[in-house]
Amino acid sequence: MSAALDPVSVIVAKRDGRELTGGQIAAVVDGYTRGRVADEQVSALLMAILLRGMSRREIVDWTGAMIASGSRLDLSGLRRDGHPLVTVDKHSTGGVGDKITLPLTPLIAACGLAVPQMSGRGLGHTGGTLDKLEAIPGWRADLTADRLVEQLEQVGAVICAATADLAPADRKLYALRDVTGTVPAIPLIASSIMSKKIAEGTSALVLDVKVGSGAFMTTVDDAAELARTMVDLGADAGVRTRALLTDMSTPLGRSAGNAVEVAEALEVLAGGGPPDVRDLTLALAEEMLAAAGRADVDPAAVLAGGKAMDAWRALIAAQGGDPAAPLPRARHTRQVEAAASGYLAGLDALAVGHAAWELGAGRSVPGEAVSPVAGVTWHAGVGDRVHAGAPLLTLHTDHPERFERALARLDGAVTITAERPQVPGSRVLGRVE
Amino acid sequence: MSAALDPVSVIVAKRDGRELTGGQIAAVVDGYTRGRVADEQVSALLMAILLRGMSRREIVDWTGAMIASGSRLDLSGLRRDGHPLVTVDKHSTGGVGDKITLPLTPLIAACGLAVPQMSGRGLGHTGGTLDKLEAIPGWRADLTADRLVEQLEQVGAVICAATADLAPADRKLYALRDVTGTVPAIPLIASSIMSKKIAEGTSALVLDVKVGSGAFMTTVDDAAELARTMVDLGADAGVRTRALLTDMSTPLGRSAGNAVEVAEALEVLAGGGPPDVRDLTLALAEEMLAAAGRADVDPAAVLAGGKAMDAWRALIAAQGGDPAAPLPRARHTRQVEAAASGYLAGLDALAVGHAAWELGAGRSVPGEAVSPVAGVTWHAGVGDRVHAGAPLLTLHTDHPERFERALARLDGAVTITAERPQVPGSRVLGRVE
Repeated sequence: MSAALDPVSVIVAKRDGRELTGGQIAAVVDGYTRGRVADEQVSALLMAILLRGMSRREIVDWTGAMIASGSRLDLSGLRRDGHPLVTVDKHSTGGVGDKITLPLTPLIAACGLAVPQMSGRGLGHTGGTLDKLEAIPGWRADLTADRLVEQLEQVGAVICAATADLAPADRKLYALRDVTGTVPAIPLIASSIMSKKIAEGTSALVLDVKVGSGAFMTTVDDAAELARTMVDLGADAGVRTRALLTDMSTPLGRSAGNAVEVAEALEVLAGGGPPDVRDLTLALAEEMLAAAGRADVDPAAVLAGGKAMDAWRALIAAQGGDPAAPLPRARHTRQVEAAASGYLAGLDALAVGHAAWELGAGRSVPGEAVSPVAGVTWHAGVGDRVHAGAPLLTLHTDHPERFERALARLDGAVTITAERPQVPGSRVLGRVE
Repeated sequence: MSAALDPVSVIVAKRDGRELTGGQIAAVVDGYTRGRVADEQVSALLMAILLRGMSRREIVDWTGAMIASGSRLDLSGLRRDGHPLVTVDKHSTGGVGDKITLPLTPLIAACGLAVPQMSGRGLGHTGGTLDKLEAIPGWRADLTADRLVEQLEQVGAVICAATADLAPADRKLYALRDVTGTVPAIPLIASSIMSKKIAEGTSALVLDVKVGSGAFMTTVDDAAELARTMVDLGADAGVRTRALLTDMSTPLGRSAGNAVEVAEALEVLAGGGPPDVRDLTLALAEEMLAAAGRADVDPAAVLAGGKAMDAWRALIAAQGGDPAAPLPRARHTRQVEAAASGYLAGLDALAVGHAAWELGAGRSVPGEAVSPVAGVTWHAGVGDRVHAGAPLLTLHTDHPERFERALARLDGAVTITAERPQVPGSRVLGRVE
């Protein structure tokens, strides 16, 4: 922070509804990363941003300042068999049972592209992608930059922890937002996601923006605004970006947790799995291929041919995991029976997420360990017939004293109707590019 | 802070425009005072309060929580000659050249009431009342609670530093507001002032709410809202409170600084002084007497009779000062001449305040020493004739290298017109009770 720029003047400008200059934004973000601007000043600024908003230009500058706080990877030199290897990545804003990264990443690798997927661990009802993969014996999330490039060229995919040098400002700002009620601001969410994805060096990107009770964005309008903001940020930074808006009012697939979601991903890679998980995996694969200029490839055919499962095995093995090892299972399970006969008309995503969290699948403070075996599985999808007294959900945990709190979270989460409910043919609600 | 109350839930409630409960407010203010709620959480809440506002009920609860963070003095037992002694105090929201407390406090003591004036040092263009009085050789601002009561009974007045136990939450919150751009929120200004005045134990209170370029409130509407909020808070707490709105577009009297303002106060106590200072002193005295139920006393007669000067000498001597000692004078002065002949039509209060600050009269960080001799004096009031080349202002400092910065602050601050300007007969713009 230059001596000439007083952080209070930046706070006051945004408080009073003025647009911040690029210099003000750079000075605050850089000063905060270096510990020269105090937490209490930045949290006041974040609240002013949340309540006053930011212009597109301010969001671009804020994102740029976060990228500039670390280094931006250059993956343009990737080669296989002497030919350039095109990179494309996917980011989901997060939802309950969202294991799509697990089948999608090897599927895209099997299509001949390279996926440089870097993830944080975050806080959530269930673990993040890294937590899910760590349920696989031996698998490690940490890669050096050299190893990352090597693995992308050999395997076509990495799923790894973000390096400390990737947008460090975002890491510090996210932790502050989490404890100061300043998470749900579209400019801050968009810049947080896009600064990391741009810094990671991918040349194309597909965003899965979730909408519904189990997501940050509960309305299609908010989700569309977030998607538009991120797609514009990507375009401004030279990353070909497009987004799908997808439904998260009911959890994805039939499982929420860590090992239980890996098991479901394996079903999809084997050609089966819950239809909604398979369909969304293919829909996002088509977007990724189109964004990367390879709309000629048919991901369904690649999946059917078994190459995606081969790529999965290579990806897991390259990071120390044993793809043949059995997944860990919980020591205790508890069944929840259907209370009536009829059709499953609703299963509340947020309630299922909370139940999985109570069972140990997620963390409540950064750095906390998650249980690989904890989670919830359900045995019918929305629209399916259910029978009174037959098992509808199964809770999984190593800590049986947690069942009661998890069951309390599920109170009222299941809706059974006598009439067959309308079931949308697809989770995809919209598209932004 | 009880384990059940998460500070983030309080921030989120105010962020989303909801009214906070008394329990939420008490938990945050108490938790912050005890160090259990973090600076960065409270600053985010303060910004949300600034932008979302507070209901009257919330402001009452917030003020009550700040009072409850320390102890409330009970001055109801004060006696003189066996009779109860009525307490009344004044608070000014602060302006340039505002030395009214200095003549007013002994004047009210001379009228037979007791003034328990407790002040902070704050930050400002010039020092606060305590800094001004410390220009008097030997005078001390610190009194024990016992000595305070004794002096009130014997002299009828104290002007002293607030004890550490007087609304400690306000002290901590004010320091945080100062560095986070959250000072100018009417609920926070009102609760800060009134929590200290209510805790100090006065039974009646008059507020001087300044309006104009040299004040926090630059419009009469904002000043009236602040005055109404504070008068209501006083009434709710059983303190008979009224307010005057007074003009601060030009600085008060003929001096801004520390010793230079004491000298001007002595002129008023001796029966002279600038008319605006004398008039505002008497106007506020009448309000204080009326608020204390002694509207029968004529303060102008008491002032004319010399008793206010006697009370001043007693007040200064009781706190270790030598009322007969000469006031310190600056080692260096610099004259500013009138650029034209005509009438002084304007002298910008904020510019004069900034110049005094550049000369060393005020502080820029808490705890910094101020110069007793630094300041600005001017030799004509608005409406007076001035002559090109004749001295119009004098700058005073022990550090002559500061003259240039002070002169730069005064650039454009003086307006001279050929026609005699309209001069309002009084600085009083309005009244709230």
